[in-house]
Amino acid sequence: MVTGTEVLEGRVRDENGAAIAADLTARGVRVAGTVMVDDAIASITGAVRDALSAGVQLVVVTGGLGPTHDDRTMEAVADACSVPLQEDPGALALIRDAMSGVSVRASDATRDVAARKQALIPAGAISLPPPGTAPGAVLEDPGGVVVVLPGPPWECIASWHSAVGTAPIRALLGSGGAAAPIILRLAGVVESEFIEALDDPRWHNDSLEVGVCAKPGELEVVIRPDNAGARALEAHLDDRFPGAIFSRDGSGVEEVLGRALSARVETLVTAESCTGGIIGARITSVSGASAWYSGGVVSYDNAVKQRALGVPMEILTAHGAVSAECAAAMAEGVRGRLGATWGLSVTGIAGPGGGTPQKPVGLVYVGIAGPSGTETRELRLHGDRERVRQRAATLALHLLREAITG
Amino acid sequence: MVTGTEVLEGRVRDENGAAIAADLTARGVRVAGTVMVDDAIASITGAVRDALSAGVQLVVVTGGLGPTHDDRTMEAVADACSVPLQEDPGALALIRDAMSGVSVRASDATRDVAARKQALIPAGAISLPPPGTAPGAVLEDPGGVVVVLPGPPWECIASWHSAVGTAPIRALLGSGGAAAPIILRLAGVVESEFIEALDDPRWHNDSLEVGVCAKPGELEVVIRPDNAGARALEAHLDDRFPGAIFSRDGSGVEEVLGRALSARVETLVTAESCTGGIIGARITSVSGASAWYSGGVVSYDNAVKQRALGVPMEILTAHGAVSAECAAAMAEGVRGRLGATWGLSVTGIAGPGGGTPQKPVGLVYVGIAGPSGTETRELRLHGDRERVRQRAATLALHLLREAITG
Repeated sequence: MVTGTEVLEGRVRDENGAAIAADLTARGVRVAGTVMVDDAIASITGAVRDALSAGVQLVVVTGGLGPTHDDRTMEAVADACSVPLQEDPGALALIRDAMSGVSVRASDATRDVAARKQALIPAGAISLPPPGTAPGAVLEDPGGVVVVLPGPPWECIASWHSAVGTAPIRALLGSGGAAAPIILRLAGVVESEFIEALDDPRWHNDSLEVGVCAKPGELEVVIRPDNAGARALEAHLDDRFPGAIFSRDGSGVEEVLGRALSARVETLVTAESCTGGIIGARITSVSGASAWYSGGVVSYDNAVKQRALGVPMEILTAHGAVSAECAAAMAEGVRGRLGATWGLSVTGIAGPGGGTPQKPVGLVYVGIAGPSGTETRELRLHGDRERVRQRAATLALHLLREAITG
Repeated sequence: MVTGTEVLEGRVRDENGAAIAADLTARGVRVAGTVMVDDAIASITGAVRDALSAGVQLVVVTGGLGPTHDDRTMEAVADACSVPLQEDPGALALIRDAMSGVSVRASDATRDVAARKQALIPAGAISLPPPGTAPGAVLEDPGGVVVVLPGPPWECIASWHSAVGTAPIRALLGSGGAAAPIILRLAGVVESEFIEALDDPRWHNDSLEVGVCAKPGELEVVIRPDNAGARALEAHLDDRFPGAIFSRDGSGVEEVLGRALSARVETLVTAESCTGGIIGARITSVSGASAWYSGGVVSYDNAVKQRALGVPMEILTAHGAVSAECAAAMAEGVRGRLGATWGLSVTGIAGPGGGTPQKPVGLVYVGIAGPSGTETRELRLHGDRERVRQRAATLALHLLREAITG
């Protein structure tokens, strides 16, 4: 249960619900639902009561533990479980300590009011050490266990890991849950091909649940439970789509690419135009990427393509910045100038403006310069600006992965 | 209502629920809740029935319109509203047309089964033109209006815009809703300061609802309804935190920065180390950014800092890559080499590895080189790798905004 009007109204993207659901799924717990409600006390109380009366064994509530008047989640949870709020002396000491390190213009009196407000947790609950200034809580109700976590994502995740160590959650996790599912990621396979591959009575039986989700350029297949039938289906997919399964452990293409490069002691540099840094940002989200990624150039402007990558003026005037020739020159230029085994480039028209009948929005060229030469690929992508950019980045990473692993 | 096990279990981030909630909020509609459920037919049917019986006037359901066996949302909605499914001839023609353009390995027979499956909508519903191959639908039930949209985000948003043009939704939107709220974004103000600023009976009355949400380096304040009292509070915040409100229309710092640079006919280049391209990616998410952003260098490796930015070896050996001196040299190097009014640089330790007692994880330097010289700023950030990176990017953009606008 994710609380907060800012999340509910779509101004802030929820990260907590997704992260906790993924962690629970990995632990073999089936997630019954995720609910977003506003921060009104009645909304939260109602949703917690509904969940407990529906027989849910664990309710995780995030957000609304701050010091402001609209942060009333602890009060709402206490109400839902019919217990009063109580000041937790241990939590209060930790909060005061945390606040003393924060330099703010607020007065001491204001700060103390805030600390005391944040130290109130439902009577009988276990308080969790606050990663920021808001302690979470774990409360055992006759209906189930209720966990309350702070809203800021890194505080929430840190508190969740504390909560998982408490006796009530340990007992729940120990008692329940099937094994984690098999998660396969496929590149270059579309949904309708996948349906055809499943068109056999072997894969349609009650003991095998197969879910498929189309992502830009990728297909994620979740098979549960992880048994002999599931493994047979995995082998069938390997057979049917040779080389398409690029991940069997939930890792993304950036991580797979990093492992392939590390194993070969090879390095990568990038030259991005329409993606503007998305590929670099995704690669460097992988911890330790510096072992195989040196950096790159965001050549948004043609002058930067010339100056920083050495793309010849003749290519830009004869073929334009969005051309196979330019993609090749960008990939070779970044590889040569920055010095790496592989140079990856992307240039295209993300829209909404800039398209022409000859070169429409969605036209993207990927260039790959490597030890045995340079290749380019033309892509024609659909959708809005952000979709074209994200998809171009994903496909470029896959094309490079294929070039590297042969 | 967001359907799909992949979203529920946190493997895929929901984009649809947030986007539609934001659009509805902007149209003055109050969002009662967002629910994520798995793709089992009973889960979807139950959730639609619950919403309609709770008096919700509009239920928007996304996902599960694909051709595979686990895509059963239309069936579930039809069940919930007690109507049968019917083949929509107009939709079928549009789907066949859309499928003919897709080159897949699937056979014609498989494709036709898929087309017929996707053309089934609840009897009496209005079908929406499919942006991909799945048509959405708008169904008027005695309990309220139910809209069904495809799951892939750009198809979902495109279909939502079609849905908004249908008579049932137009009637609902015309009849309901307060005005849009005032949304203010503040930089450099922390939550406890904000509480103190609100500590006056003028701002605590039943006719004024004030929500606050802390984001990394920013505070978002939502005041509703947009009346004289709300405008007085806005003026009070301007008074109390001079210059802190950087956005009054929901736009992000990238857009505000772009407007400031465009107005001055100035340009920007970037040099990113630990952020790895996040700043470039965020800047180029703004359509038309090429007018004021030329590009930059992702100098992840020290060799790239030297080769592409001209950072002197002496700085790297004497002060290290994570130092004010290096940030200054990066900003000046990228400004000089790529040629722009402003050069913005970020170098730091995002973690989890790489920290030392002298230079811990979270230590980040921002450099700004401009027409009147270079300045640097030291930041000490908390949280995990991605939080440090995202926060460093946000703060760098704000420091630049302040440097430009004085």
